[in-house]
Amino acid sequence: MRERARRRRRGQEAGAGAAGPGIVADRLPQLDWRAVVNSYRPVDILDEDAIERIHDASMTILEEIGMDFLSEEAREIAAKAGADVRPGSERVRFDRNLIAELIAKAPSRFDFHARNPAHDLALGDGRLIFCMVASAPNASDLEGGRRRGNFADYQDFLRLSQQLNICHLNGGYPVEPIDLPHRTRHLDALHAAATLTDKPFHAYSLGRERIRDGIEIARLARGIDAEQLKREPSLFTIINTNSPLKLDIPMALGIIEMARMNQIVVITPFTLSGAMAPVTLAGAIAQQNAEALAGIAFAQMVNPGAPCVYGGFTSNVDMKSGAPAFGTPEYARAAQIGGQLARRYGLPFRSSNVNASNAPDVQSAYESEMAVWGAVTGGCNMMMHALGWLEGGLCASFEKVMIDAEILQMMAEYLRPIEVNDDTLGLEAIRDVGPGGHFFGTAHTLARYDRAFYAPMLSDWRNFETWQEAGAEDATTRAHRLYKAHLAEYEAPPMDAAVRESLDAFVARRKEEGGAPAD
Amino acid sequence: MRERARRRRRGQEAGAGAAGPGIVADRLPQLDWRAVVNSYRPVDILDEDAIERIHDASMTILEEIGMDFLSEEAREIAAKAGADVRPGSERVRFDRNLIAELIAKAPSRFDFHARNPAHDLALGDGRLIFCMVASAPNASDLEGGRRRGNFADYQDFLRLSQQLNICHLNGGYPVEPIDLPHRTRHLDALHAAATLTDKPFHAYSLGRERIRDGIEIARLARGIDAEQLKREPSLFTIINTNSPLKLDIPMALGIIEMARMNQIVVITPFTLSGAMAPVTLAGAIAQQNAEALAGIAFAQMVNPGAPCVYGGFTSNVDMKSGAPAFGTPEYARAAQIGGQLARRYGLPFRSSNVNASNAPDVQSAYESEMAVWGAVTGGCNMMMHALGWLEGGLCASFEKVMIDAEILQMMAEYLRPIEVNDDTLGLEAIRDVGPGGHFFGTAHTLARYDRAFYAPMLSDWRNFETWQEAGAEDATTRAHRLYKAHLAEYEAPPMDAAVRESLDAFVARRKEEGGAPAD
Repeated sequence: MRERARRRRRGQEAGAGAAGPGIVADRLPQLDWRAVVNSYRPVDILDEDAIERIHDASMTILEEIGMDFLSEEAREIAAKAGADVRPGSERVRFDRNLIAELIAKAPSRFDFHARNPAHDLALGDGRLIFCMVASAPNASDLEGGRRRGNFADYQDFLRLSQQLNICHLNGGYPVEPIDLPHRTRHLDALHAAATLTDKPFHAYSLGRERIRDGIEIARLARGIDAEQLKREPSLFTIINTNSPLKLDIPMALGIIEMARMNQIVVITPFTLSGAMAPVTLAGAIAQQNAEALAGIAFAQMVNPGAPCVYGGFTSNVDMKSGAPAFGTPEYARAAQIGGQLARRYGLPFRSSNVNASNAPDVQSAYESEMAVWGAVTGGCNMMMHALGWLEGGLCASFEKVMIDAEILQMMAEYLRPIEVNDDTLGLEAIRDVGPGGHFFGTAHTLARYDRAFYAPMLSDWRNFETWQEAGAEDATTRAHRLYKAHLAEYEAPPMDAAVRESLDAFVARRKEEGGAPAD
Repeated sequence: MRERARRRRRGQEAGAGAAGPGIVADRLPQLDWRAVVNSYRPVDILDEDAIERIHDASMTILEEIGMDFLSEEAREIAAKAGADVRPGSERVRFDRNLIAELIAKAPSRFDFHARNPAHDLALGDGRLIFCMVASAPNASDLEGGRRRGNFADYQDFLRLSQQLNICHLNGGYPVEPIDLPHRTRHLDALHAAATLTDKPFHAYSLGRERIRDGIEIARLARGIDAEQLKREPSLFTIINTNSPLKLDIPMALGIIEMARMNQIVVITPFTLSGAMAPVTLAGAIAQQNAEALAGIAFAQMVNPGAPCVYGGFTSNVDMKSGAPAFGTPEYARAAQIGGQLARRYGLPFRSSNVNASNAPDVQSAYESEMAVWGAVTGGCNMMMHALGWLEGGLCASFEKVMIDAEILQMMAEYLRPIEVNDDTLGLEAIRDVGPGGHFFGTAHTLARYDRAFYAPMLSDWRNFETWQEAGAEDATTRAHRLYKAHLAEYEAPPMDAAVRESLDAFVARRKEEGGAPAD
């Protein structure tokens, strides 16, 4: 049934743009799932000297200033591994040689397993994966307006993440399901992620119990034992340092628990230039680099070789209001420099698709594009918040999910390697057509036309008159219809009954036990 | 008065984003006029081998297939310069050595003079200039809807081109002033371009008389003699070959007249892949390259050393409907490959900011961004249609002018070189703030905060609640208010009385003579 639907869609894909993106129930065109590989050379916007100066500054920060590790357990691990930790102080200082040694142990490429092997991912080495928006406290769509995060919307975002081939994984809770009880929320939320989708997902580092529950749910969903899980990373967590230069207890425990199980740790300092980091881009990135490397080095102290990702999230504030800004020129430049640094250390690089708009309007689109192009040309391997983010992260928008899906599909298509050979150069076709002719009916065209170009799913290429007669819908209105249609088409991915049972039983038991301790 | 207004704006520029882009009559923040320089390394998406294969294919096209030159005068010039022209045939074939010799004569960088020297431009060598939309048959805004091109709208677009510092020049008629009589339209239109703005402009190659009138108006507006005009390019024309492989009479005469006076010729084949060019990107670009080089070589036959620009406009059609598409993944890739080829020949490169949307909506923004990023990372020197284009060029939108102005300002800011030194690395500030602090009140921040970041003119960074209370305007609605405010603020740039008189007299005389011959 699913297979038939896929074949049907594929056959009609090329026609998507032709009739306009009119949505018929059994025909939702989109790109097939595929591994996106960026084989273009990244944009190095700083020369090697400047990169070395930033590196050097960040090493000086770690050696002379150091970071506060609030967790005693973390400080003990750091001290044992050779960091400078003094009694009675939370401060941890790292010699640059120690950092270099530890960072060298982190793999430059690793696999990331889904419960459906067809959705397995890899990180590093040109691979690029796109995550659904994460951690928004509000959700919105054109029909229902903006509302507080809730479990119903949460599940709909998950369904879209499963439905859209260009969405490779979930990067957290797309929207916070505030209506679920706090202590057991992670159990219901992760159970939904593991059952409504068959793609990889994320668990929050909110204390030891929650992250352990997340690891167990990832293991059960794949139906594997702990040893196999250790060999095959199947879960990731985002670690935000408390910039400047602080690592709190839940984040430290997240690194410890995840690294011990060889699961993926993404260290992302939230270095807002002008607020939690210097007002200068160079300074903010030096601080980002210090914090990211300290976190990755710490993960390597726990488990040498643990899969880690270098996260960049440097943006700037509006200096009059203090409001964070996203998708700015500064953001694009910071993403590219972040990529240069990650490559210097041989680490996969995480960036994001962000904007500060309050509506899924042109501002949301042009700020997002600045972020996406900055990330892609910066050599990004993991794009967080790639679909659906609005308002600097305070809102997950259903329409923006569809707008971003189109933006990302276009980017995936842009990254497809170009073939230059006798066949594609088409000299014979040019000769046959000759001056003043046209290529519509040539054999060269007919053999290729249905697969030659990207066929959009949201963009409307009909002429103005046809578009007007059809109701003159703008792209955001079309995005609304499109996301509804995808929800209507959604089918839950199959899951082995025994696996499902074990997952249900685990969640039921942990809920009975009361879930995580109250904060 | 103008100077005072400018100072006032500059002083308040940094605050633009803070209160939101509320528009107050005497305060329209924008970036100061500046030469935009792209010092980042362009993205080479093809390796050298692939570029050489495309080059080789285009040389084979010119040698073996050739181009039809419909103008006898052009064929005579070509024959005299060594091209293979046979009696009774329009076909012109070029030996690859002849092409190489001629292309080598074209300068890789040259100046482009405005009547106001403060608005002088340069082409090539990393410089990047942005043109107002050109040649749209319709105009639109939110208030008046879509209407046929007319002289009143035409003049308003010119006023915006003067008003917006990020708009460096006019690239043709922003909208066709259809209400002006056909034979004298160019006289009124170019008179308006020369008086309502003090930036460089364009004349259409629509027959010998019109292009000569254009050259004369450019000369008179600068108040210089013909010899100085020849030394100082002050006008440009776009030459579209009639793809595939044809050069019509008006375009050939445009090249001849402009090159003789050493004015700027931009050769842009309109190679729509799947229609007027092969359905494969490699083939379409091989054909683009053949046509562009033939045009530039022809200009060099007329006047060795004449300033020329390599134009790329390769896009694709929707293969079901035949409708042209713009701002597609294919478009972005074609722009980058076009840039690689132009650099191979040491020629300035022209690209465009295009989209196929019927409204100034998110589609128009994300397609435009694909085009702009493709162009900029492709090493574009001249971006045509940089502000205001919609509907694949069938409509000039006032709101889109403002949306694009923001997009281009962000790009100009992105291209500003990043300083990495002890001052910007800010180690002392990081040391002073220490773990857990913040940078808001530090001396390092206070000394820089008002100039540290890009301050938007259209984006609204206020939080959702404030934005909602203020009316919840989306960015397109704000763009409407903003363009109206710029028109209200517009003042005609000063012009020397004698210059004005000579210009008025020339146009009056030529109109009395009846203008250009009827077609």
